[in-house]
Amino acid sequence: MRFASVVIFVVLIFDNERVMSEKEYTVPGFKAGAIAAGIRYQGRPDLALIISEVSATAAGVFTTNKVQAAPVLLSRTHLTGNKARAIVANSGIANACTGEGGFQRAKSTAHIVAEAVGCPVHEVLVASTGVIGMDLPLEPLANCIPKLVSSVRGNGWFDAARAIMTTDTVPKIHMVKSRLQDHDFTVLGIAKGAGMISPDMATLLSFVATDAAISPAALQALIREETDRSFNRITVDGDTSTNDTLLVLANGLAGNRPVKKLDSSDGESLRQALGEVLLKLAKMIVADGEGATKFVKITVRGGSSQAAALLAARTVANSLLVKTALFGEDANWGRILAALGRAGIDLDPQRVQLFFNEVKLVEKGLAVGAEAETKVSKILKDSSFSLTIDLGQGKAEETVYTCDLSLDYVKINADYRS
Amino acid sequence: MRFASVVIFVVLIFDNERVMSEKEYTVPGFKAGAIAAGIRYQGRPDLALIISEVSATAAGVFTTNKVQAAPVLLSRTHLTGNKARAIVANSGIANACTGEGGFQRAKSTAHIVAEAVGCPVHEVLVASTGVIGMDLPLEPLANCIPKLVSSVRGNGWFDAARAIMTTDTVPKIHMVKSRLQDHDFTVLGIAKGAGMISPDMATLLSFVATDAAISPAALQALIREETDRSFNRITVDGDTSTNDTLLVLANGLAGNRPVKKLDSSDGESLRQALGEVLLKLAKMIVADGEGATKFVKITVRGGSSQAAALLAARTVANSLLVKTALFGEDANWGRILAALGRAGIDLDPQRVQLFFNEVKLVEKGLAVGAEAETKVSKILKDSSFSLTIDLGQGKAEETVYTCDLSLDYVKINADYRS
Repeated sequence: MRFASVVIFVVLIFDNERVMSEKEYTVPGFKAGAIAAGIRYQGRPDLALIISEVSATAAGVFTTNKVQAAPVLLSRTHLTGNKARAIVANSGIANACTGEGGFQRAKSTAHIVAEAVGCPVHEVLVASTGVIGMDLPLEPLANCIPKLVSSVRGNGWFDAARAIMTTDTVPKIHMVKSRLQDHDFTVLGIAKGAGMISPDMATLLSFVATDAAISPAALQALIREETDRSFNRITVDGDTSTNDTLLVLANGLAGNRPVKKLDSSDGESLRQALGEVLLKLAKMIVADGEGATKFVKITVRGGSSQAAALLAARTVANSLLVKTALFGEDANWGRILAALGRAGIDLDPQRVQLFFNEVKLVEKGLAVGAEAETKVSKILKDSSFSLTIDLGQGKAEETVYTCDLSLDYVKINADYRS
Repeated sequence: MRFASVVIFVVLIFDNERVMSEKEYTVPGFKAGAIAAGIRYQGRPDLALIISEVSATAAGVFTTNKVQAAPVLLSRTHLTGNKARAIVANSGIANACTGEGGFQRAKSTAHIVAEAVGCPVHEVLVASTGVIGMDLPLEPLANCIPKLVSSVRGNGWFDAARAIMTTDTVPKIHMVKSRLQDHDFTVLGIAKGAGMISPDMATLLSFVATDAAISPAALQALIREETDRSFNRITVDGDTSTNDTLLVLANGLAGNRPVKKLDSSDGESLRQALGEVLLKLAKMIVADGEGATKFVKITVRGGSSQAAALLAARTVANSLLVKTALFGEDANWGRILAALGRAGIDLDPQRVQLFFNEVKLVEKGLAVGAEAETKVSKILKDSSFSLTIDLGQGKAEETVYTCDLSLDYVKINADYRS
């Protein structure tokens, strides 16, 4: 069997299967930490640093928004060398829409870190999240980065995860331990973002470290594919950010021969572990969506193509009327059908079936009946459930994860800059 | 001059230039009225009827949603004859997603009206708005329609406008008087809809009556074009409805020779009047958008094509983060740029300029400064203002109308069915 040698020890915060202490989150050869630099607010950690003892293979995935923040532009450039020693990330100010001046500020940040760490500037990756259009102040960075460099530690990941939070209510971290070529390896990721890919307060940032050895090309291909199965399958509000960034460092200290082909047993081991970390982080982001009270897995099956199934799932997941009905715990299936009707896919309403968890609510486009609605109303009171839509057109299936739209979402986003 | 002979007396409720009494709203040869039929709620008018004394030329525009309600399917069929005597519309229950049974109920409604009015069934057009998936009860219709037919009157338009309201807070009506071929004519329209084209509570319904004479083909072409400039340029929440319906009746009693070519002085007279009515009604719908506290005209100019300008305007108009910032009276231009960045259009952020009313807030993709922001913050406290976006790409310009996303939007839509 292809995956016979793969044993995965999954550490689950999200599912509460086993709660580990913060100290257990470590990756050989990596240190992390944070400091309160006072970038926009005083007295809260707002600057995170991740350092690899050795120069690590590095890869990244960035926002598709045509308005790209300065740190995105800079990190893209630095990644052309496929090597990095450090990731520095701040919250509070996004350093987006700041022009050439903003780019210079991102560069200066990298310079300060490079000097303190003792590595080339292009081996420092930068990321920012916060308000768009404000200048990133360099004074606090210059003051704090040297202290931060000397205070990072092997088990400082939670501190880093907390420092990049904006409207997040909980830090997001996930770790997987696995084996390849008889070598143990670890993949550990942190993330922030409480509206999926949304412009300023809810930028999605994720940083992942592994001690596995992998070639730059394989790493880049792997994270692009797995991003598509995780962060690109979640939505909170349909907006996208100028700053979304996923950075992965692989320092090779696990001692395995570098993985060069993903289509191999070793490649699969890495994919399982990395994919697991990214998907867990993505789900945590939705569950902690701005104002969210419901976590909803939306699966569309019976699609005429993968693209149609995904488009249908995304349209339902982003419909304000569906999302407000979920908040209201209202089994308002008419809104789901109406969202499907405008999704731009082939649709025969009379073939559509809807299920909440295992309960069928709609068959042939019509309500099954009062009993089913009563059952579904109970399911909707839970904080987490699934909605399955069968289009009855073909065999394609896609899943996205979303949350409800609550009063708190509006409060958070109406008040954000004040 | 082409339009020299056109004199338009515009009656403005919306702009408050002149407030007319309800009795002044009449169209020669038309009667309207409403009754409390108890379709879903007791004691409120929920059934509206419009009757033309003579068989009128009829045309309609319907939802593009692939899930179409029974009354939409029936009215489409009846309109193939291009003639109608009556429009009957109910609120409370949308008669959508109700299958063959729902279609029969729509048909029965038309039958009851046809019998009471004394006209062929296919000269009765039907429309519904309300909850999806519930059966439309025929008993109250059978009881009330004969009474309603005998109580309609020339100045009963406000009653009809009130009866089709759902989450609307004010009835929507507009009338234009004009002349063509030395004949006076009137165009009067009513509408409802408080979320633009949104599935169940906020279906857009609009019924327009005119005594001008026009050929069926010209009328159909005219209302399609003018719908595109009015109802298709507004958005409250980006959702579309299963029931959206615009119906226009032209009974010809003004005595003009029927207008056959729109590209003529007569055609322009009609276009001016009808376009004015539809645009006013569309703006009223946005201003009364569910929970709306702001009416915002968004103009995108400098687009590389009309399609790009329209897509940019719509993306900004539908962005949850832009709409919540408007609710928060926050000059959060970064969210506007970020929405443009994901619109899928050619974009060079450094060419973008943003204006609120006449105040430039962003130039070359960067904030103009604190003074401009202070001025804009004042503008944002108004209940109505414009946002102009110059993309700096070309010469195309498009305008859409939107509203903010407030706490009340969520409250209204979370509680709607309960």
